[in-house]
Amino acid sequence: MPANSAPDAPQASTFADGLESPWGMEFMPDGSLLVTERRGRLRMISADGRDISSIQGIPRVDHRDHGGLLDVTIDPAFASNRLVYLSYTKAGRGLHIDRNSLTVARARLSDDGSRIDEFKVLFRQTPGAVNGQNLGGRLAVSADGYLFITIGDRHAPQDRMRAQALAYYQGKTVRIRTDGTVPDDNPFAARHGARPEIWSLGHRNPQGAFVHPRTGQLWIAEHGPQGGDEINVVRKGLNHGWPMVTFGCEYDTCAKIGEGTSRRGMEAPLAFWKTPKIAPSNLILYTGDQFPAWKGNVFVGTLAGKAVWRFELAGEDNAPRVVRREALFAELGERIRDLRQGPDGSLYLLTDGAKARIVRVARADSML
Amino acid sequence: MPANSAPDAPQASTFADGLESPWGMEFMPDGSLLVTERRGRLRMISADGRDISSIQGIPRVDHRDHGGLLDVTIDPAFASNRLVYLSYTKAGRGLHIDRNSLTVARARLSDDGSRIDEFKVLFRQTPGAVNGQNLGGRLAVSADGYLFITIGDRHAPQDRMRAQALAYYQGKTVRIRTDGTVPDDNPFAARHGARPEIWSLGHRNPQGAFVHPRTGQLWIAEHGPQGGDEINVVRKGLNHGWPMVTFGCEYDTCAKIGEGTSRRGMEAPLAFWKTPKIAPSNLILYTGDQFPAWKGNVFVGTLAGKAVWRFELAGEDNAPRVVRREALFAELGERIRDLRQGPDGSLYLLTDGAKARIVRVARADSML
Repeated sequence: MPANSAPDAPQASTFADGLESPWGMEFMPDGSLLVTERRGRLRMISADGRDISSIQGIPRVDHRDHGGLLDVTIDPAFASNRLVYLSYTKAGRGLHIDRNSLTVARARLSDDGSRIDEFKVLFRQTPGAVNGQNLGGRLAVSADGYLFITIGDRHAPQDRMRAQALAYYQGKTVRIRTDGTVPDDNPFAARHGARPEIWSLGHRNPQGAFVHPRTGQLWIAEHGPQGGDEINVVRKGLNHGWPMVTFGCEYDTCAKIGEGTSRRGMEAPLAFWKTPKIAPSNLILYTGDQFPAWKGNVFVGTLAGKAVWRFELAGEDNAPRVVRREALFAELGERIRDLRQGPDGSLYLLTDGAKARIVRVARADSML
Repeated sequence: MPANSAPDAPQASTFADGLESPWGMEFMPDGSLLVTERRGRLRMISADGRDISSIQGIPRVDHRDHGGLLDVTIDPAFASNRLVYLSYTKAGRGLHIDRNSLTVARARLSDDGSRIDEFKVLFRQTPGAVNGQNLGGRLAVSADGYLFITIGDRHAPQDRMRAQALAYYQGKTVRIRTDGTVPDDNPFAARHGARPEIWSLGHRNPQGAFVHPRTGQLWIAEHGPQGGDEINVVRKGLNHGWPMVTFGCEYDTCAKIGEGTSRRGMEAPLAFWKTPKIAPSNLILYTGDQFPAWKGNVFVGTLAGKAVWRFELAGEDNAPRVVRREALFAELGERIRDLRQGPDGSLYLLTDGAKARIVRVARADSML
């Protein structure tokens, strides 16, 4: 412990390392961690961080560009049913071999944690795209059994308007049940020509998501273009604006995109970074007791920003406003690919890259 | 009369000439004709075709590319209220000078026909576009006072997906009242973020339109890209497919556009021309008595095709099917810019170009 730290000051230490290009992680009820690696491995890390193993039964993934095995999350009733959800990019077949689709599957983790079985694809983004960029890919399951999936616009500038088109999955959040069926009360379930799974539209590349425990609302973080990263409280059936309104601009030239930064009928973000580009990976709501001052704060991991942003909110949970924001843990100098609250209320930060680790942030007097 | 013609054979003759790049025409109850010229003149031609005059009071139009003063139509109660409707492209102001918007206005034609007054803009396509292509621009008024406007996708390949986006007017038909207000029963009138005037989506460049007198449905003709011209019976609130499904392909390369020629949730056209490109201008339902064999047929004027296509239909008016089609009047060798049924049941064909004319098609025994 550094000499200048109080006992309740947050301290960062390496919890586990040896991870290769990880993307998502999730705690299991026993405190052990599931971690995805983009090239197609699902790892399990013991609750003390000392043992790491690979889970068998993962499908082949298409890991070109930013794709591959992406997120992992668990069922609300995981303790009894052992169900996990995985997102990944899957190459097409035959003539469609150059395309890939964001795909979401459910599987059952064996009791000994060595493999997954009963693999079932729940969702596939069709048609696929010819790159592996702006994939979205984050999963969030609500306590009442809805699975939200974030989907990016797949980057191609000439196709970005698909984020506004209800006939495409690009640039959307979607909501299905954990068995893959589509809820009748989805906003476009009955609209001829619309994808019934769509929950909201007008997103660029949302790669962070959680379901708020009190409101059931989906909160997301999304990558803007050059500048214009956003946090959004997603509204059922509504239009969050990309690419019509954004606080960002085109790469390199910073040419204007769309029509401005706001417009009637387009939902404004809860928060945004005009510049610089911080590249948010995931976000969480902190509900732990270890850091009472952080309770109810939202933490956003950032890649380019190499920090974790902390947001203090005020107002009702379904109509929040930001009253304070600060960048934390910049001294780590790490791109943060995912973050979670551990069972003990510590923060766990998953770093990015070919040689990645998990950093545990805990009170100085509570280190493992 | 050619010696080889029967008395009831259709014969073409010049009704009027001296028109400069005309676009639309409409008969008034007294048999005289209103004709637009793209550079901004509204002409009136007497019922016998002999006198032609210019109507004063037309706004300045932006006639770059295919734009300018486009269509003209009259109110169902024109005989008593003298109201006319005009569509045209209008340049933006200030910073938006390089853009133009399809605009629709209403005005009152003076009793002597010399000028229009009480000019009122009813609709403006905002934001504008930086070209004057794929404008749409056809007007059709229903007997019960709804004004339909066809709007093209504005051509830019990177923007064509706007035809699928409810937040844009591009690639839509819209429906307003003849006073410019938006009917509450428009399909997206209550949808946050959608343009409330939208009646249907997924059109490329619809430049032909009529309201069917029995069903009240909007029938349109639209230009495809290279190939893929279509006739559509428009369904309220539904998706007619462009650019996701089309029978056409990209110019020059004939590269594939979208996903194919049909898809669940996308309305199929009533008829299409895969190749060659005929470029439909306008279409009408023939209801006259002069050619009994044509009654209930749909006639489509074509530009590139230099002919008028006649379609025989069967089935209910709201679920028709094509049973026969033929190209007529190809011997004229004229690009047909508009066509109308005259008060006497003759067909009037408006030709295209800087030196254009109106051709009257009538029974050989009924020539003026």
